[in-house]
Parts: sequence; C-alpha cells; structure tokens
Amino acid sequence: MTSSKYREEKMPKPNDSKEIMDRKIEHLKIPLEYDVQHSKNYFNDIKLIHHPIPEIDFEDIDLSVKFFNKNISAPICISAITGGHPISKEINEILAKAAEEENIIMSVGSQRAGIEDPALLDSFKITREVAPNIPLIGNIGIGQVSDANFEVANFTKCIEMINADVMAVHLNALHELVQDKGDISYKLFRVNFKNLRESSKVPIIAKEVGTGFNEELALTLDKLGFDGFDVGGSGGTSFAAIESKRNHFNKQKYTRDPAEVFREWGIPTPVSVIYVRNVSQKLIIATGGLRTGIDIAKSIALGADIGGFAYKFLQSAWKDRKDRKSKSISHTVKEIRTLKNELRSCLWLMNVDKIDKLKGKRNKYVILGELFKWLHQ
Amino acid sequence: MTSSKYREEKMPKPNDSKEIMDRKIEHLKIPLEYDVQHSKNYFNDIKLIHHPIPEIDFEDIDLSVKFFNKNISAPICISAITGGHPISKEINEILAKAAEEENIIMSVGSQRAGIEDPALLDSFKITREVAPNIPLIGNIGIGQVSDANFEVANFTKCIEMINADVMAVHLNALHELVQDKGDISYKLFRVNFKNLRESSKVPIIAKEVGTGFNEELALTLDKLGFDGFDVGGSGGTSFAAIESKRNHFNKQKYTRDPAEVFREWGIPTPVSVIYVRNVSQKLIIATGGLRTGIDIAKSIALGADIGGFAYKFLQSAWKDRKDRKSKSISHTVKEIRTLKNELRSCLWLMNVDKIDKLKGKRNKYVILGELFKWLHQ
Amino acid sequence: MTSSKYREEKMPKPNDSKEIMDRKIEHLKIPLEYDVQHSKNYFNDIKLIHHPIPEIDFEDIDLSVKFFNKNISAPICISAITGGHPISKEINEILAKAAEEENIIMSVGSQRAGIEDPALLDSFKITREVAPNIPLIGNIGIGQVSDANFEVANFTKCIEMINADVMAVHLNALHELVQDKGDISYKLFRVNFKNLRESSKVPIIAKEVGTGFNEELALTLDKLGFDGFDVGGSGGTSFAAIESKRNHFNKQKYTRDPAEVFREWGIPTPVSVIYVRNVSQKLIIATGGLRTGIDIAKSIALGADIGGFAYKFLQSAWKDRKDRKSKSISHTVKEIRTLKNELRSCLWLMNVDKIDKLKGKRNKYVILGELFKWLHQ
Amino acid sequence: MTSSKYREEKMPKPNDSKEIMDRKIEHLKIPLEYDVQHSKNYFNDIKLIHHPIPEIDFEDIDLSVKFFNKNISAPICISAITGGHPISKEINEILAKAAEEENIIMSVGSQRAGIEDPALLDSFKITREVAPNIPLIGNIGIGQVSDANFEVANFTKCIEMINADVMAVHLNALHELVQDKGDISYKLFRVNFKNLRESSKVPIIAKEVGTGFNEELALTLDKLGFDGFDVGGSGGTSFAAIESKRNHFNKQKYTRDPAEVFREWGIPTPVSVIYVRNVSQKLIIATGGLRTGIDIAKSIALGADIGGFAYKFLQSAWKDRKDRKSKSISHTVKEIRTLKNELRSCLWLMNVDKIDKLKGKRNKYVILGELFKWLHQ
Repeated sequence: MTSSKYREEKMPKPNDSKEIMDRKIEHLKIPLEYDVQHSKNYFNDIKLIHHPIPEIDFEDIDLSVKFFNKNISAPICISAITGGHPISKEINEILAKAAEEENIIMSVGSQRAGIEDPALLDSFKITREVAPNIPLIGNIGIGQVSDANFEVANFTKCIEMINADVMAVHLNALHELVQDKGDISYKLFRVNFKNLRESSKVPIIAKEVGTGFNEELALTLDKLGFDGFDVGGSGGTSFAAIESKRNHFNKQKYTRDPAEVFREWGIPTPVSVIYVRNVSQKLIIATGGLRTGIDIAKSIALGADIGGFAYKFLQSAWKDRKDRKSKSISHTVKEIRTLKNELRSCLWLMNVDKIDKLKGKRNKYVILGELFKWLHQ
Repeated sequence: MTSSKYREEKMPKPNDSKEIMDRKIEHLKIPLEYDVQHSKNYFNDIKLIHHPIPEIDFEDIDLSVKFFNKNISAPICISAITGGHPISKEINEILAKAAEEENIIMSVGSQRAGIEDPALLDSFKITREVAPNIPLIGNIGIGQVSDANFEVANFTKCIEMINADVMAVHLNALHELVQDKGDISYKLFRVNFKNLRESSKVPIIAKEVGTGFNEELALTLDKLGFDGFDVGGSGGTSFAAIESKRNHFNKQKYTRDPAEVFREWGIPTPVSVIYVRNVSQKLIIATGGLRTGIDIAKSIALGADIGGFAYKFLQSAWKDRKDRKSKSISHTVKEIRTLKNELRSCLWLMNVDKIDKLKGKRNKYVILGELFKWLHQ
Repeated sequence: MTSSKYREEKMPKPNDSKEIMDRKIEHLKIPLEYDVQHSKNYFNDIKLIHHPIPEIDFEDIDLSVKFFNKNISAPICISAITGGHPISKEINEILAKAAEEENIIMSVGSQRAGIEDPALLDSFKITREVAPNIPLIGNIGIGQVSDANFEVANFTKCIEMINADVMAVHLNALHELVQDKGDISYKLFRVNFKNLRESSKVPIIAKEVGTGFNEELALTLDKLGFDGFDVGGSGGTSFAAIESKRNHFNKQKYTRDPAEVFREWGIPTPVSVIYVRNVSQKLIIATGGLRTGIDIAKSIALGADIGGFAYKFLQSAWKDRKDRKSKSISHTVKEIRTLKNELRSCLWLMNVDKIDKLKGKRNKYVILGELFKWLHQ
Repeated sequence: MTSSKYREEKMPKPNDSKEIMDRKIEHLKIPLEYDVQHSKNYFNDIKLIHHPIPEIDFEDIDLSVKFFNKNISAPICISAITGGHPISKEINEILAKAAEEENIIMSVGSQRAGIEDPALLDSFKITREVAPNIPLIGNIGIGQVSDANFEVANFTKCIEMINADVMAVHLNALHELVQDKGDISYKLFRVNFKNLRESSKVPIIAKEVGTGFNEELALTLDKLGFDGFDVGGSGGTSFAAIESKRNHFNKQKYTRDPAEVFREWGIPTPVSVIYVRNVSQKLIIATGGLRTGIDIAKSIALGADIGGFAYKFLQSAWKDRKDRKSKSISHTVKEIRTLKNELRSCLWLMNVDKIDKLKGKRNKYVILGELFKWLHQ
C-alpha cells in the first residue's frame, strides 16, 4: 500500500507489530511532553449568548442524549486514544472504567494491532470487560478498509473484540502521508466499504483525526451509507506536529520536513461542523480542540450532537496510571464531571434545559475573528 | 435553593450573616488588589464623531436628566457596590454624601443582609440619612425574589430601609453559580415578581451585574412590567474572576475552577445596550467597563440614558475612607466632577447641548474592531 | 471668553503675551522631545496600486498645481508651526526661505501674538520678507474670530502682516479645551465670520489641527463661504498629548488629566479627507500624520489637493537653526526635495503624469485594516 | 536613459560592465546575508480545503504540465536569479543542471551584461550547455527594450545565447528607480515591443520582479501580444530593501532613503495573480513570496499555471557552490524534489489528480486576514 516510488523506506520490517507498538507509545507521550497542538483554536471566536434569568433548576437540566440505541448521561465522548500495547491496556482500562462510571461514550484506538497480533488483543478487550454497558466505538483505519486483501471478517473481529456498539473508520490521510511508511492508497475504499456496509450490523461513522471534513465529501459519505461523522477538525492535536517530533525526517531526501510544512493543514473544527451539518442530518461528534464543557455547548449550537475529547483524557488517564496500585480512575472521572458541570453551567446560563434545544440554534451564538471570515467566503 | 446534588457544601452554616459579611469584604478588597476586570473592553471599539466648531458654550451644556420623578445633575449613577458590614457603612456614607453633594444617582448593594440581620441595617440606612434628596436605588437579588418563602413585605422593607426611589432586582446568575453556595433556582421568579409588581409603588429595574442582557429576555422583562434596565454587560469587573481569587475552588471535585472557565462569559456592555434598546423604550443604565465620561457619552449615543460606575467609585471611596477622621469625601466628589467634566467635554466637542440630542444617534459614532463583527451577524 | 465656572484659573495673568510666548516655545519643544503623536496612523491602511510600466519620463511628471491664484512647484504645504517668539522668528525665517527656494506653500502659526504685542510682529513679518513670491497662509484662531470684541481690522492686520495670499481660521476646540485657559466660546463665530467673509478679499480656509472635520460641518462651512479646508485629522501630533506633557493638570480638581483622556480623540486624516470631499468640491489640504511623499499621493487619491506637514518641518528647521551662523536652510530644503522626489516616484510608479489625474481616483488605491471599517458603517 | 536632472550621478562610469558585475554579486549576497523579504506574506491568508479521502494514489498524481511546446515534470520555475559574472556562471550551471535533471523550467538573469560584454557570455551560455532539453527563459529588461538604440538583433542574440524557448521582459521600475543609475525611461517601450513582437518567433512574457501587475496593465499587455505573465508580486525579496542595504543612499540629497520608503511598495502576489487572471487567459507564473509546494498549489488554485522561486534556489545553489570540486547539485535537486513532494502532497490531500483540476477553482480555498479586504474593495 505504500507508494514506494515517492516515499522512503528507511529500514526493513523485521517486526512489524513491535514497530507499531513503539510508535503507539510515542504517540501517547509526545502530546504529553511537547506542544503539538494546532496554533489556532477557533472556538475562541465563538461567543455563546448569555441569558440572565435561567428559569430552570440547575439539577433539572437534562444532559442525557441518545447515542444510537443507548442512552448516555451527557454528550461526551472519550475520543480514540490508544490500543495495541501493554501501556495502552492500562490507559484503556482507566478510560473505560471512568466512562462506565459516568455513562459516556468511549472509543478505542486503531484496532489494527489487535487483529495483526493476538498478543495485543487484551489492550482492546479490557474496555468492554470493565465497561459492560456504555457505547463503545471500535476503530479501523481507512488504510485497512482500502487494502486489496481487506476482509469483512476483520471488521467483524474488531466489533467482536470489544462488542462494539458502533464502528469508526478513521480517515487519517495527512498522518499517514507524513509518517515514514504510511498507508496512502485508498482507491479501493468505496468498493470495500460498500461490502462492509452491507454486511455490517452496527452503525459506522467516518472519523477525521485533526484535518476536518469538507462539505463535498461529507455529502458523499452520507450517501455512501455512513451513519455519522466524528469531524476531527484542526484546533487540537496535530498529528503532523507529532510526527515532526518523532524525528524520522530524512534530511538526505528533502530540505523541509513535510510534517512541519503541513503542521497547520486542515479545516478548523467549528467550520467543519458547520460544513457537515449543511449537507447531512446524521450524527456529528465534534472533536479537535475542544477544551472545556463550554466548547461542547458551542459545538452543539453549531450543529453537532456530541463533543469528543482525546487530549484532556490522555492527560487524566496518564495521571491515574501513575497511581497504578490503587487502580485509581479518579482523575479521569473528575475530568468527565468537570466537563459535565461546565456544559450544564453553560446550558443553565443560556436557559436551555436540554441538549436538543441548543442544537444548531443560530441565535444562541455570535461568530467573531477569523472564523467570521471563514464563514463569509 | 442551593442545588445541593451538583454543588459542594464545604462547611456548615453556623453563622450565615457572619459568612455573608466576610464575603462582602472580600468582594470589596479583591477588585482593589487584583486584576479582576474582563480582558476585553469594547468601548475602545467605538469612536465618537468630532465636531470642530462647538456653537454652544461649555457651561451652557445641560447634563441634567430626569431619572423617574427626580432631576439629577448628570446621567451618572454610582452603581451598587456594597452593604451589610461596618466597612460597607463607611463606604456607603462616603458615596451617598458625595452623590448628594453632586446630585447624582446612587445604588446600594444587595439589601439581603439588612433584612436577615437587623444589626446590619445601618450600613444601608446611612445612605438616605446623609443623602435626603437624590434618587436612591434599592437592591434585592433574583435569588430572594425567586424564593418559595419570598414575601412582598421583605421588598417593602428594602424600600423603607433607604426610602428608595427605585428598586433594582439584580440578576447575577453566573456569580451565584460560581460561588460555593449560590442561589441558583429562579423558577418562581415570574410568579413572585408579578405579585411584587402589582403591590409595589416604586419603579423596578432589572439589573445585570457583568454578563449583559440578550434581546429576547429584555423584551420579556419589558412586558413583565420592569421599568428599566441596568445592563451590566461584560467589560468591567468579572464576578467570576473575583470568585476565582477567593480560592474556594474544590480541587477534589473538578479539574478546572468554574470561576476561571467562565471568567470572560457574557455579552459586552455596548452590545447589550444596543440589544435592549432594539426591543424596549424604557430606561437603560449602561454599566460594565465604563471608565471615563467619554464612555458615558458612547453609551448614550448607543441608546442608554445613564452611565453607571462601580469600580471607579469603589476606588475613590476607599481612598476617602483612609482619611476617616476628617470624614473626607473629596476623592469621590472629585471622581464625579471628573466624569461630569469629561462628559461635558465630549458633548461640547460634538456640539451637542443636551443629553437627549445625543441619545441613540447613529450618526454620532462609528464602530470598529470586533464590536463591528458582533453587530454584523 | 474662558468658561471660568468650569475651568481652573491657576494664576493671574500679569503678562499675557509673556505667557503665550513661553507656551509657544513649549509647543515647539515638546513634539521634538517626547512622543506626542497619535497612536494610530491610518495612512498605513491605504495601499496605492502599482503600475509596472510607467510610460512617462520621471522628469516629465508635472507636480505643479495651482493654489488659488499662484502656481506652486508641488502640492506641499509647510503647515502652521509657530510665531510670536524670537525663536519662532528664526524658525519662520528658515521655513519661509526654504519654501521660497522650492516654491511651495507656507503657513504661519497663530498671528494673535503679533496683533496683541507689536514687539512680536517681526516673527511673522520675516516670512514675507524672505519669501516674496510663494503663497503664504495667515492664521487666526476661532477663539479670536468668535470674540465679542472681534474686529475685521484685526483680520486685515493679519493679512497685511505677511501680505497673506490666503487666511486660515484654525479650529482647535480640543486644544483650547485641555489648555488651562482656553478660548472655548464660539457662539459668535458665524456672525463674526460672515462680516469677515464679506469684507475680506483673500480666500479663507477652515483649518483643523488634529481632530478632523465631519461631513456635516464641512458642508456647513462650504455654504458659509469658506474657500477650502485644511483637514488636520488625527494621526500626527496630538495637541492634547502636548498639553498632558506640559504638566499643568490640576490634580486637586480632577482625578484624570483631560489631556490624557482625550489624547486620541478625533477623526483620522484619511477619513476626514473623504468626509470633506463627499460634500464639497473646494480645496483640501490634507494634514495630520503625513510622513512621506507617498502619504501626499495617498491623500490626493482620496480627494485632497495638497499635503501639509508640520512635524517633519519642525524637525528640519530645528536642525537648520542649530547651525545659526551659517543661516543654513539646507535641512529644510532637503526635506522638501525628499517629499517631492517621493511624490514624483509615487506618480511615476502609478504611471500618472500630473497631480490632477490622481485626484480622487478610487481605482488607484485599496483600503485595509480598521480604516476599511471606518468607511463601511 | 537616466533622468539626470532628478537623479544623482555619484561617479563616472569608467568600467560599466565591471560595475554591473559588482552589483550583480551584491544582489546575490545581500538576500543571503540580510532580511530583505517583504514584511507581509499574504500566502498565509489563504487556506486550501482538505479532502479526507484521496481516491487517487500518491504516485499517480500527475504534476506534469505543458509549458508552451515542452512538457515539464511539475509546474515549477527557477526564477531569474543571476548572470554576467564568474560566480553567476557557477550558480547558473548548478541551477541548470538541477533543472535538467528534474525537468523543470529555468530562467536566467538579465542578459544585458552578456550582450554588452562578450566576456560574460558564458555565464549565460552554460545553462543551455548543461540543460539541453528543459525550457529556458531568456531575460531582457524593460530599460533595454525601451532604449532609443534598441535593436531586435539584440533580442535575437539573447535568444540565441541560450537557445531560449521563451523570452521574458522584466519590468523592474521600482528597482531601477531606487538604484543610483537606473533605466527609468520607458516611453519607447510600446513601439519597440511591437517590432520585437512581430519579428520574434519565441513566446514573450512580461515579468514583474516584486511589485506585481494591476488589472489594467495586464489587459493592455495581453492585447499588446504578450504570451504570458510572471506576476512577481510583493511578499518575497524586496529589491528596494536590497538597494537600501547597498548603502548608496546619498544623505546629502535626501532626508530619507527612497529604497527604505518604498520597501513595501507593491501588489501582493496572490492579489496580482487574481488581477491578471481576471483579464487574461494567458500563462501565469506566480512568483514573489512562494516558500513551499503548498504555495504553488495556492497560486494555481487562484488561477496561476506555474509557481516560480528565486530566493529558495539562490539558497540551494549557494550551498552547492561551496562544494565546488564535487560539482554537486544535490541541494538544488533536493529543493526541487521537496517542492514537488509538497505540491503532490497538497494535491493528494485535496483529492486532485492533475494540475488542471485545481487551476482557478474557487471552491478549493478560503481567503482570510487582510487579503480578504484586498479582494473586497
């Protein structure tokens, strides 16, 4: 799948899953140790409209929403963070336990490692073991779905691995491109996806990972049978920035690191939410640069259904993990409760008693700054 | 009234009024010692239009306006600052004496303490004692009006306490929310207010305290029988910022201090003045981020009737108080005269001889910066 | 004429012209020693449109324009700087000699001192003595024209003092206001001006000094019989800033120095040029924040006829004055030549062979930044 | 041709080509040693629209375009850098070899030196010797074409010198103006060009060098028979800035260096591409401030055909030259490959499989910042 003519092959692949494992740990640690966030966060350009007399009681605000066929306590998703490594197992156990305790959605990282190396399966399976009730979102990459050898059975394996309620196909073109051996051939995607779609019983969502959807593709994917979108626009963690920190740039080949040059590439999350909602009425999870419960409220006002967070939960889970013996999940639970309290506070301060009444309401916000220009082309 | 299920109860309430008293002193001192002002002040985005040949004499400019049934020398209001503490009494005495000397409006802080603890009554009563003639605005909180045990008699007590010309119901939802034991249940507000409205002989205004009115609620309150608005938009003191300095954030419960997260929440004062004037012809006091007499002129050009100042007068009164023996009010009087001189200068430089001729005149100003975008949604 | 009720009287007036003299020297020195320029210069928001193939020869570009009944070599005016002091005489001699050598316009400072104290006459008269041919603009203040004792004879004296080609009535309301004893009563202005207008044979222009004309007044003055405008908008020297440096602020009376509070008051020069041209076809001198010959070209493209400079020529004359013995005027001549060369370069780079072809041409420039918003209200 | 009346003649011209030679070396070294780039680069205000699922293989993307009658591997041009000096010969040899190896376009610097001094011919000839196949663009200045003694034979000599595929007439009015002895008389340009046009068999393009085309002239040149445009707008190297570094400013004559005053003069490259495309369907090379292959893609989306780079290739060739013995061209080849990889990456991330499908597509980008205002006049 690698476009070998144009892309370097730095080393042989003696132990593919070992290498993937190492990379997975780097992907966890780099965002914790370096600033790999996009330089602009357009959520600051959105202002929600205050309502001075909330006529609902704070505790009566109903944050619960339906996520496909399950009810969750609040429109919050722990976005796909990791999987496929002993440390990933620890992280996933913490996240899943906390999500179960708080009844929110959790996604796992790419399940490819679990399929390719059964020894890594438990880093995924642990999530369902400790979280029997919540919606779990499985995760497979566009590279695998586009593979000539792709089999629906592998997709089914992913579902079964965690008894997934929903599957996400992550679209990480830029990330694959700037990695040293990325999967960047997606010609078979439509054909393979159609087979998948026909045979799969669970809903499938299209998941961007930091570069966002445009309107045209959102419409295409809606028609192709996707059941929703995780927009993953720019504003949060930049995978290109992560790759530029991994220092695998081949200075012999290029004068500039592609990962640096494309660091800020992408459609900002608020713009992408609006783009998708313009053409589709299906589920939208807004991910990419959300930092607080206020950002969930802003996303929903723009048209999203759910707010997704990876970076915040990576931070909380890492803290919980340091206290391994006690099997603590307190930091992560606290983060979820903080988001809920912030979101509830927002709704109360806008006199909105349920999530639905905020969704896509143009009179609930104003747009300032550069975001104003993005939306006035 | 506290939403106990969602909000912490750090300590028992052995001495409720003692606690309120301490808080009141913190509310006075924190703005004097820390920067708790909103980070953006949109008054800078308004430019008044200079007129090179004033054809009126400076001293002939008539700053006087009618405030309900009293005439005042200038459209200036000492906004609600304090009450309910021996130091508050000193402050209120200074402010009221100065207001009387200069014949402007004065508001007292929330009178709740005075009702709950007769020992604190004199901190309010002092204002009318030293200011027999000026309009005094009494002050009761939305929390009290919304209380199941609310009695019109308490409202009447407030009026009588200072022989109030006007009563303000302060709407401080955000402040209550981020305090540790805030009153955040306002379901009974409409019903109780209707009773109040029917039985009350004095005008009643709705007073925001730093987060501003939106158009929809302004229209509702106008129809509900309010006689005016003190817009209190964002731009000046942020009560959330004050609370974040009070360090009562429970780190065990949340990862982020709600008072920090909501520090900048709210509708900017100039926007809120325009919103309210768009839907109501009733009195508007513009408060929140006014710093000079130029800002009074800007507010009036946008449609307000009066400019209100709390922070500036807190500063001046605190200076006067240091010189206790002499019973000095000179700093506060000087501040009032400075505002008058600045406002008069503005009017003169715009060739406007009375306040009415400036009010709501679109051709007297231009709007720049982000404020331009707020108003072009 | 001073509004004594509202303005302080710091000291008696033992020697009025002595005091004026001292002030005049401060007005010269403060801009040279402190930053008293407006904080924003909107000329930077204008971009002239480059033309890659000038089809005219550089030396064939005709910068000459007619200024009333005289021809000048370029649309450049040495704006009113000084008069009424021995040092002013030196400065005026330098400026007038250089203007004569380069055949451009020169204005003198307020001639009031010359009328009130014959001993100071020569500081004005020197200009015509050394510059027999160029257009000289005399200068009288709105305060004097508005005086109850105003006599047309005084105006005539001003003309005769320098054999003025044109008289300017300077409108310096803000400056007078923030000075300690300003003339701020202009009620008689219209009546007195009409007498003046009828009896005067020379053209009379209205001259703002840093706060600009609005549209409404420009139309009024056009109809009242003024023959042109020196717009003097904000962007250059702020007289309020000068006054705030003179430290005459009475801290006993006000909490803030009015000169500080109104430091940035005014309509920016480019905006004011457009305002005036919108309503009048008479002569416009653009003054206030012009720094180079490019700014002259920008002013003319916006609709002005002439570019005026005070600060640049104050700097050059001060340098020339240091070399007193040699009676050097070289710095000032060099500044004029620099402005001409820059203006000629601009015209050449826009393929414009004479000033008229640039005047008011909307297709020769674009407007960016905050200036864009000023003009889109 | 020099406008001697207005421009200084610092020294005699004992050895004209020697002087040109020295200047040429300064023109190479100054951009390498000082910051002489324009202060604003408007390419940052353009955002390309990401497409999450490229359905083409990376290696299948066809970057090749036709450049007049030759095919090149990618729309990349090494813009005119140098010629007429032994060091220029080295640089040109490196650039031409690399361009040949990568099959892209190369332009030579002004060929005037080669015509005037046969000893300098080889610095140009070397390009065709080492690059027999690629499109080479010859280069003659507007000053020479406009010369009264201009002969078509000289133009033919330029073509023959390098067997040029295309000739560029560079329009460097600002540069000539701020040089001490610039050619600034272009009155004969149209007449001479018509002769040239009729007799020349190769296509001729009009080349700006950092100040950009306006719409009006672009239309004129299209009709006059030019076959294309090298827009050379502002954003990259400022020749005025180079001249200000050369320290030939005559302080005795002017108070400000014209090269400093006009440092930022010009139309930004993205604006100029749009201006030209608005009125002409002919070839456009976008030069001026392009830094990466992303900027090529942006230029093409705006309507250009080719992206040109001088500064980047000056840097790469200078590095190659340091390694003279090895006759290395590796840095330059690497730069070309980097640009190609970045451009290909862009196309892939936009799901565009050939250059034509991106060209002038308004739905492929958004415009932010000040560029938004340039385009909304």
